Amino acid sequence: MALSADEVHSLKQAPPVEGVLSVVLNRWSPRSFADRVVSREDLGRVFEAARWAPSSQNEQPWRFLLGIRDIPPFDTIYTKLFEALLGFNQEWAAAAPVLVLGVVDSQFAHNGKDNPHALYDLGGAMAHFALQATALGLTTRQLAGFNHDLVRENLHIPANYALGVVVALGYQGEPSALENEKLVAREVAPRERKSLQELVFSSWGEPADLGA
Amino acid sequence: MALSADEVHSLKQAPPVEGVLSVVLNRWSPRSFADRVVSREDLGRVFEAARWAPSSQNEQPWRFLLGIRDIPPFDTIYTKLFEALLGFNQEWAAAAPVLVLGVVDSQFAHNGKDNPHALYDLGGAMAHFALQATALGLTTRQLAGFNHDLVRENLHIPANYALGVVVALGYQGEPSALENEKLVAREVAPRERKSLQELVFSSWGEPADLGA
Repeated sequence: MALSADEVHSLKQAPPVEGVLSVVLNRWSPRSFADRVVSREDLGRVFEAARWAPSSQNEQPWRFLLGIRDIPPFDTIYTKLFEALLGFNQEWAAAAPVLVLGVVDSQFAHNGKDNPHALYDLGGAMAHFALQATALGLTTRQLAGFNHDLVRENLHIPANYALGVVVALGYQGEPSALENEKLVAREVAPRERKSLQELVFSSWGEPADLGA
Repeated sequence: MALSADEVHSLKQAPPVEGVLSVVLNRWSPRSFADRVVSREDLGRVFEAARWAPSSQNEQPWRFLLGIRDIPPFDTIYTKLFEALLGFNQEWAAAAPVLVLGVVDSQFAHNGKDNPHALYDLGGAMAHFALQATALGLTTRQLAGFNHDLVRENLHIPANYALGVVVALGYQGEPSALENEKLVAREVAPRERKSLQELVFSSWGEPADLGA
Protein backbone atom coordinates (compact mmCIF):
# COMPACT_ATOMS: atom_id res chain seq x y z
CA MET A 1 0.00 0.00 0.00
CA ALA A 2 1.34 3.40 -0.96
CA LEU A 3 2.25 5.75 1.87
CA SER A 4 1.45 9.47 1.73
CA ALA A 5 4.08 12.18 2.22
CA ASP A 6 2.74 12.84 5.72
CA GLU A 7 2.92 9.17 6.64
CA VAL A 8 6.49 8.97 5.39
CA HIS A 9 7.47 12.07 7.33
CA SER A 10 6.11 10.47 10.52
CA LEU A 11 7.92 7.24 9.78
CA LYS A 12 11.23 9.08 9.37
CA GLN A 13 11.23 10.74 12.78
CA ALA A 14 13.99 9.65 15.11
CA PRO A 15 12.70 8.14 18.37
CA PRO A 16 12.08 11.04 20.73
CA VAL A 17 14.59 11.66 23.50
CA GLU A 18 13.58 14.26 26.08
CA GLY A 19 15.51 17.48 25.66
CA VAL A 20 16.89 16.70 22.20
CA LEU A 21 16.20 19.37 19.57
CA SER A 22 13.13 18.59 17.48
CA VAL A 23 14.84 19.82 14.29
CA VAL A 24 17.52 17.18 14.84
CA LEU A 25 14.96 14.41 15.30
CA ASN A 26 12.72 15.58 12.43
CA ARG A 27 15.39 16.16 9.78
CA TRP A 28 15.76 13.46 7.14
CA SER A 29 16.87 13.37 3.51
CA PRO A 30 14.07 12.77 0.99
CA ARG A 31 14.33 12.07 -2.70
CA SER A 32 10.80 13.19 -3.56
CA PHE A 33 10.28 16.95 -3.71
CA ALA A 34 6.97 18.77 -4.17
CA ASP A 35 6.33 21.16 -7.06
CA ARG A 36 6.43 24.19 -4.81
CA VAL A 37 8.83 27.15 -4.83
CA VAL A 38 10.96 28.20 -1.86
CA SER A 39 10.42 31.83 -0.88
CA ARG A 40 13.28 34.30 -1.15
CA GLU A 41 12.87 35.02 2.58
CA ASP A 42 13.39 31.35 3.48
CA LEU A 43 16.43 31.15 1.21
CA GLY A 44 17.84 34.10 3.14
CA ARG A 45 17.16 32.28 6.41
CA VAL A 46 18.92 29.02 5.52
CA PHE A 47 22.03 30.86 4.38
CA GLU A 48 21.87 33.09 7.43
CA ALA A 49 21.98 29.97 9.61
CA ALA A 50 24.92 28.59 7.62
CA ARG A 51 26.81 31.86 7.95
CA TRP A 52 26.91 31.66 11.75
CA ALA A 53 28.59 28.26 11.88
CA PRO A 54 32.01 28.13 13.55
CA SER A 55 35.17 27.61 11.50
CA SER A 56 38.88 27.19 12.08
CA GLN A 57 40.35 30.63 12.83
CA ASN A 58 36.94 32.05 11.84
CA GLU A 59 38.06 31.65 8.24
CA GLN A 60 34.50 31.03 6.96
CA PRO A 61 35.95 29.19 3.96
CA TRP A 62 32.51 28.43 2.50
CA ARG A 63 31.00 29.98 -0.60
CA PHE A 64 27.62 28.99 -2.07
CA LEU A 65 26.32 29.02 -5.62
CA LEU A 66 22.54 29.26 -5.62
CA GLY A 67 20.64 27.46 -8.36
CA ILE A 68 16.87 27.92 -8.71
CA ARG A 69 14.94 26.09 -11.41
CA ASP A 70 13.36 28.35 -14.06
CA ILE A 71 14.17 31.58 -12.18
CA PRO A 72 16.79 33.81 -13.87
CA PRO A 73 19.56 34.48 -13.14
CA PHE A 74 19.64 31.41 -10.87
CA ASP A 75 18.46 28.96 -13.52
CA THR A 76 21.91 28.81 -15.13
CA ILE A 77 23.52 27.44 -11.97
CA TYR A 78 20.61 25.07 -11.48
CA THR A 79 20.97 23.62 -14.98
CA LYS A 80 24.75 23.32 -14.78
CA LEU A 81 24.56 21.56 -11.43
CA PHE A 82 21.80 19.24 -12.57
CA GLU A 83 23.72 18.28 -15.70
CA ALA A 84 26.72 17.33 -13.56
CA LEU A 85 24.82 15.03 -11.20
CA LEU A 86 25.70 11.39 -11.62
CA GLY A 87 22.89 9.37 -13.21
CA PHE A 88 21.34 7.95 -10.09
CA ASN A 89 20.90 11.42 -8.60
CA GLN A 90 19.41 12.84 -11.80
CA GLU A 91 16.57 10.34 -11.46
CA TRP A 92 15.10 12.24 -8.53
CA ALA A 93 16.80 15.65 -8.26
CA ALA A 94 14.91 17.21 -11.18
CA ALA A 95 11.94 17.68 -8.83
CA ALA A 96 13.93 19.77 -6.33
CA PRO A 97 13.31 23.49 -6.97
CA VAL A 98 16.69 24.56 -5.54
CA LEU A 99 20.20 23.14 -5.93
CA VAL A 100 23.05 24.76 -4.00
CA LEU A 101 26.74 24.10 -4.55
CA GLY A 102 29.00 24.46 -1.51
CA VAL A 103 32.71 25.09 -2.12
CA VAL A 104 35.58 26.07 0.18
CA ASP A 105 38.70 28.16 -0.11
CA SER A 106 41.52 25.64 0.29
CA GLN A 107 43.89 28.21 1.73
CA PHE A 108 43.79 30.47 4.77
CA ALA A 109 43.18 34.05 3.63
CA HIS A 110 45.60 35.52 6.17
CA ASN A 111 48.69 33.53 5.20
CA GLY A 112 47.97 31.53 2.03
CA LYS A 113 48.74 28.23 3.77
CA ASP A 114 46.63 25.14 3.16
CA ASN A 115 43.51 24.97 5.31
CA PRO A 116 43.00 21.27 6.08
CA HIS A 117 39.82 22.02 8.02
CA ALA A 118 37.84 23.74 5.26
CA LEU A 119 35.64 20.79 4.24
CA TYR A 120 35.04 19.88 7.88
CA ASP A 121 33.87 23.45 8.42
CA LEU A 122 31.63 23.31 5.35
CA GLY A 123 30.03 20.20 6.81
CA GLY A 124 29.12 22.21 9.90
CA ALA A 125 27.74 25.12 7.88
CA MET A 126 25.59 22.77 5.81
CA ALA A 127 24.29 21.14 9.00
CA HIS A 128 23.12 24.58 10.13
CA PHE A 129 21.54 25.04 6.69
CA ALA A 130 19.74 21.68 6.86
CA LEU A 131 18.45 22.14 10.42
CA GLN A 132 17.26 25.65 9.60
CA ALA A 133 15.47 24.28 6.55
CA THR A 134 13.75 21.72 8.78
CA ALA A 135 12.63 24.49 11.12
CA LEU A 136 10.97 26.24 8.15
CA GLY A 137 9.11 23.13 6.98
CA LEU A 138 11.61 22.64 4.16
CA THR A 139 13.78 19.60 3.55
CA THR A 140 17.22 18.89 2.14
CA ARG A 141 19.26 16.11 0.64
CA GLN A 142 23.04 16.46 0.37
CA LEU A 143 24.76 14.93 -2.65
CA ALA A 144 28.36 13.93 -3.10
CA GLY A 145 27.80 12.25 -6.47
CA PHE A 146 28.50 14.84 -9.15
CA ASN A 147 31.13 15.45 -11.81
CA HIS A 148 33.56 17.87 -10.18
CA ASP A 149 35.50 18.74 -13.34
CA LEU A 150 32.33 19.59 -15.20
CA VAL A 151 31.00 21.78 -12.38
CA ARG A 152 34.32 23.58 -11.97
CA GLU A 153 34.54 24.33 -15.67
CA ASN A 154 30.91 25.28 -16.27
CA LEU A 155 30.56 27.45 -13.16
CA HIS A 156 34.06 28.98 -13.35
CA ILE A 157 35.18 27.92 -9.87
CA PRO A 158 38.72 29.19 -9.20
CA ALA A 159 41.43 26.57 -8.73
CA ASN A 160 41.99 27.40 -5.06
CA TYR A 161 38.41 26.47 -4.17
CA ALA A 162 37.62 22.82 -3.45
CA LEU A 163 34.19 21.48 -4.39
CA GLY A 164 32.28 20.07 -1.44
CA VAL A 165 28.63 19.27 -1.85
CA VAL A 166 25.44 19.84 -3.80
CA VAL A 167 22.35 20.29 -1.64
CA ALA A 168 18.82 19.83 -2.95
CA LEU A 169 16.31 22.04 -1.12
CA GLY A 170 12.52 22.20 -1.29
CA TYR A 171 9.34 20.80 0.21
CA GLN A 172 8.87 17.09 0.69
CA GLY A 173 6.91 15.41 -2.13
CA GLU A 174 4.73 12.34 -2.38
CA PRO A 175 6.78 9.13 -2.48
CA SER A 176 4.60 7.94 -5.36
CA ALA A 177 6.07 10.73 -7.51
CA LEU A 178 9.34 8.79 -7.68
CA GLU A 179 9.31 6.66 -10.80
CA ASN A 180 12.04 4.22 -9.85
CA GLU A 181 10.72 1.48 -7.52
CA LYS A 182 14.07 1.21 -5.74
CA LEU A 183 13.91 4.90 -4.88
CA VAL A 184 10.35 4.51 -3.60
CA ALA A 185 11.48 1.67 -1.35
CA ARG A 186 14.27 3.82 0.11
CA GLU A 187 11.93 6.77 0.51
CA VAL A 188 9.61 4.80 2.77
CA ALA A 189 12.24 2.85 4.74
CA PRO A 190 12.81 3.86 8.39
CA ARG A 191 16.02 5.71 9.17
CA GLU A 192 18.80 3.68 10.75
CA ARG A 193 21.71 4.74 12.88
CA LYS A 194 24.42 3.02 14.87
CA SER A 195 23.78 3.00 18.63
CA LEU A 196 25.60 5.28 21.04
CA GLN A 197 27.40 2.18 22.32
CA GLU A 198 28.96 1.74 18.89
CA LEU A 199 30.00 5.38 18.62
CA VAL A 200 31.04 6.79 22.00
CA PHE A 201 34.00 5.23 23.77
CA SER A 202 35.68 5.49 27.16
CA SER A 203 38.77 3.94 25.57
CA TRP A 204 39.14 2.83 21.97
CA GLY A 205 36.34 0.32 21.21
CA GLU A 206 35.00 0.34 24.76
CA PRO A 207 31.41 1.72 24.96
CA ALA A 208 31.10 4.71 27.26
CA ASP A 209 28.54 4.34 30.03
CA LEU A 210 26.18 7.23 29.35
CA GLY A 211 23.66 6.01 31.90
CA ALA A 212 21.05 5.26 29.23
CA MET B 1 35.52 47.57 33.00
CA ALA B 2 35.21 43.81 33.32
CA LEU B 3 32.18 42.16 31.77
CA SER B 4 30.28 39.36 33.49
CA ALA B 5 29.60 36.01 31.85
CA ASP B 6 25.97 37.03 31.27
CA GLU B 7 27.00 40.30 29.65
CA VAL B 8 29.42 38.46 27.37
CA HIS B 9 26.78 35.92 26.41
CA SER B 10 24.44 38.76 25.38
CA LEU B 11 27.20 40.47 23.42
CA LYS B 12 27.90 37.26 21.48
CA GLN B 13 24.38 36.78 20.15
CA ALA B 14 24.04 37.06 16.39
CA PRO B 15 21.62 39.81 15.33
CA PRO B 16 18.14 38.30 15.37
CA VAL B 17 16.55 37.37 12.06
CA GLU B 18 12.89 36.36 12.23
CA GLY B 19 12.46 32.63 11.77
CA VAL B 20 16.12 31.71 12.27
CA LEU B 21 16.75 29.06 14.95
CA SER B 22 17.66 30.56 18.30
CA VAL B 23 20.29 27.87 18.94
CA VAL B 24 22.08 29.01 15.77
CA LEU B 25 22.04 32.65 16.83
CA ASN B 26 22.98 31.92 20.46
CA ARG B 27 25.84 29.47 19.86
CA TRP B 28 29.33 30.86 20.21
CA SER B 29 32.72 29.44 21.20
CA PRO B 30 34.00 30.55 24.61
CA ARG B 31 37.40 30.00 26.16
CA SER B 32 36.27 30.46 29.75
CA PHE B 33 34.46 27.49 31.27
CA ALA B 34 32.77 27.36 34.69
CA ASP B 35 33.75 24.86 37.38
CA ARG B 36 30.55 22.85 36.92
CA VAL B 37 30.10 19.26 35.81
CA VAL B 38 28.01 18.19 32.83
CA SER B 39 25.34 15.64 33.73
CA ARG B 40 25.47 12.15 32.24
CA GLU B 41 21.97 12.76 30.80
CA ASP B 42 23.13 15.86 28.93
CA LEU B 43 26.18 14.01 27.61
CA GLY B 44 23.79 11.40 26.26
CA ARG B 45 21.74 14.14 24.59
CA VAL B 46 24.62 15.84 22.77
CA PHE B 47 25.84 12.52 21.37
CA GLU B 48 22.27 11.56 20.48
CA ALA B 49 22.00 14.74 18.40
CA ALA B 50 25.34 14.01 16.70
CA ARG B 51 24.25 10.45 15.91
CA TRP B 52 21.32 11.61 13.76
CA ALA B 53 23.40 13.75 11.43
CA PRO B 54 23.36 12.73 7.75
CA SER B 55 26.43 11.15 6.14
CA SER B 56 27.52 9.95 2.74
CA GLN B 57 25.85 6.57 2.12
CA ASN B 58 24.75 6.68 5.76
CA GLU B 59 28.26 5.52 6.62
CA GLN B 60 28.25 7.32 10.00
CA PRO B 61 32.05 7.39 9.90
CA TRP B 62 32.32 9.22 13.22
CA ARG B 63 33.55 7.77 16.51
CA PHE B 64 33.94 9.74 19.72
CA LEU B 65 36.32 9.37 22.64
CA LEU B 66 34.81 10.92 25.76
CA GLY B 67 37.16 12.57 28.23
CA ILE B 68 35.84 13.82 31.59
CA ARG B 69 38.16 15.51 34.05
CA ASP B 70 38.66 13.62 37.33
CA ILE B 71 35.94 11.03 36.57
CA PRO B 72 37.24 7.47 35.98
CA PRO B 73 37.36 5.84 33.52
CA PHE B 74 36.97 9.00 31.43
CA ASP B 75 39.82 10.91 33.10
CA THR B 76 42.45 9.01 31.13
CA ILE B 77 41.13 10.26 27.81
CA TYR B 78 40.77 13.75 29.25
CA THR B 79 44.37 13.85 30.39
CA LYS B 80 45.76 12.41 27.17
CA LEU B 81 43.79 14.89 25.07
CA PHE B 82 44.78 17.80 27.26
CA GLU B 83 48.46 16.88 27.10
CA ALA B 84 48.29 16.88 23.29
CA LEU B 85 46.76 20.35 22.96
CA LEU B 86 49.09 22.90 21.49
CA GLY B 87 50.28 25.49 23.99
CA PHE B 88 47.83 28.23 23.23
CA ASN B 89 44.89 25.91 23.77
CA GLN B 90 46.26 24.53 27.02
CA GLU B 91 46.10 28.03 28.46
CA TRP B 92 42.31 27.91 28.63
CA ALA B 93 41.13 24.32 28.05
CA ALA B 94 42.07 23.09 31.53
CA ALA B 95 38.86 24.70 32.81
CA ALA B 96 36.60 22.70 30.47
CA PRO B 97 35.17 19.68 32.32
CA VAL B 98 34.76 17.61 29.15
CA LEU B 99 37.04 17.07 26.13
CA VAL B 100 35.78 14.92 23.26
CA LEU B 101 37.89 13.61 20.40
CA GLY B 102 36.10 13.11 17.08
CA VAL B 103 37.66 10.69 14.59
CA VAL B 104 36.42 9.16 11.33
CA ASP B 105 36.83 5.88 9.54
CA SER B 106 38.71 6.83 6.36
CA GLN B 107 37.23 3.93 4.39
CA PHE B 108 33.69 2.91 3.51
CA ALA B 109 32.74 -0.14 5.56
CA HIS B 110 30.89 -1.80 2.67
CA ASN B 111 33.75 -1.82 0.16
CA GLY B 112 36.95 -0.63 1.85
CA LYS B 113 37.38 2.25 -0.58
CA ASP B 114 38.52 5.67 0.59
CA ASN B 115 35.71 7.82 1.95
CA PRO B 116 36.63 11.40 0.95
CA HIS B 117 33.54 12.77 2.70
CA ALA B 118 34.24 11.47 6.20
CA LEU B 119 35.62 14.68 7.71
CA TYR B 120 32.89 16.74 6.03
CA ASP B 121 30.37 14.41 7.66
CA LEU B 122 32.09 14.72 11.06
CA GLY B 123 31.75 18.50 10.72
CA GLY B 124 28.00 18.06 10.38
CA ALA B 125 27.77 15.70 13.35
CA MET B 126 29.74 18.11 15.53
CA ALA B 127 27.44 20.95 14.46
CA HIS B 128 24.52 18.88 15.75
CA PHE B 129 26.49 18.29 18.96
CA ALA B 130 27.24 22.00 19.39
CA LEU B 131 23.69 23.19 18.69
CA GLN B 132 22.28 20.54 21.05
CA ALA B 133 24.71 21.71 23.72
CA THR B 134 23.46 25.27 23.22
CA ALA B 135 19.88 24.09 23.66
CA LEU B 136 20.86 22.57 27.02
CA GLY B 137 22.56 25.73 28.29
CA LEU B 138 25.97 24.22 27.63
CA THR B 139 28.67 25.61 25.38
CA THR B 140 31.41 24.23 23.13
CA ARG B 141 34.65 25.24 21.53
CA GLN B 142 36.09 23.11 18.72
CA LEU B 143 39.87 22.79 18.48
CA ALA B 144 42.02 21.84 15.55
CA GLY B 145 45.31 22.61 17.30
CA PHE B 146 46.53 19.37 18.84
CA ASN B 147 49.35 16.90 18.31
CA HIS B 148 47.80 14.19 16.16
CA ASP B 149 50.65 11.71 16.48
CA LEU B 150 50.61 11.93 20.25
CA VAL B 151 46.84 11.47 20.45
CA ARG B 152 46.89 8.56 18.04
CA GLU B 153 49.60 6.80 20.01
CA ASN B 154 48.32 7.51 23.50
CA LEU B 155 44.69 6.69 22.75
CA HIS B 156 45.42 3.73 20.44
CA ILE B 157 43.51 5.05 17.43
CA PRO B 158 43.70 2.52 14.56
CA ALA B 159 45.53 3.62 11.43
CA ASN B 160 42.39 3.64 9.27
CA TYR B 161 40.78 6.33 11.44
CA ALA B 162 41.60 9.97 10.72
CA LEU B 163 41.71 12.41 13.60
CA GLY B 164 39.30 15.29 13.21
CA VAL B 165 38.64 17.56 16.14
CA VAL B 166 38.77 18.01 19.89
CA VAL B 167 35.69 19.64 21.37
CA ALA B 168 35.66 21.31 24.78
CA LEU B 169 32.25 21.11 26.44
CA GLY B 170 30.90 22.68 29.61
CA TYR B 171 29.17 25.73 31.02
CA GLN B 172 30.33 29.22 30.13
CA GLY B 173 32.66 30.78 32.72
CA GLU B 174 33.47 34.31 33.79
CA PRO B 175 35.80 36.02 31.32
CA SER B 176 37.87 37.26 34.26
CA ALA B 177 38.86 33.64 34.97
CA LEU B 178 41.09 33.71 31.91
CA GLU B 179 44.58 34.66 32.98
CA ASN B 180 45.95 35.75 29.61
CA GLU B 181 44.86 39.28 28.70
CA LYS B 182 44.78 38.45 24.99
CA LEU B 183 42.33 35.64 25.69
CA VAL B 184 40.15 37.96 27.77
CA ALA B 185 40.07 40.46 24.89
CA ARG B 186 38.93 37.76 22.47
CA GLU B 187 36.37 36.45 24.95
CA VAL B 188 34.60 39.81 25.10
CA ALA B 189 34.89 40.77 21.39
CA PRO B 190 31.69 40.67 19.31
CA ARG B 191 31.37 37.83 16.81
CA GLU B 192 32.07 38.70 13.20
CA ARG B 193 30.96 37.02 10.01
CA LYS B 194 31.12 37.76 6.31
CA SER B 195 27.87 39.12 4.85
CA LEU B 196 25.55 36.98 2.74
CA GLN B 197 26.61 39.13 -0.24
CA GLU B 198 30.16 37.85 0.20
CA LEU B 199 29.09 34.21 0.50
CA VAL B 200 26.08 33.46 -1.73
CA PHE B 201 26.46 33.90 -5.48
CA SER B 202 24.22 33.81 -8.55
CA SER B 203 27.35 33.27 -10.61
CA TRP B 204 30.91 33.06 -9.32
CA GLY B 205 31.68 36.24 -7.35
CA GLU B 206 28.30 37.84 -8.13
CA PRO B 207 26.18 38.38 -4.98
CA ALA B 208 22.81 36.62 -5.13
CA ASP B 209 19.81 38.87 -4.61
CA LEU B 210 18.15 37.34 -1.57
CA GLY B 211 15.72 40.22 -1.23
CA ALA B 212 17.26 41.33 2.07
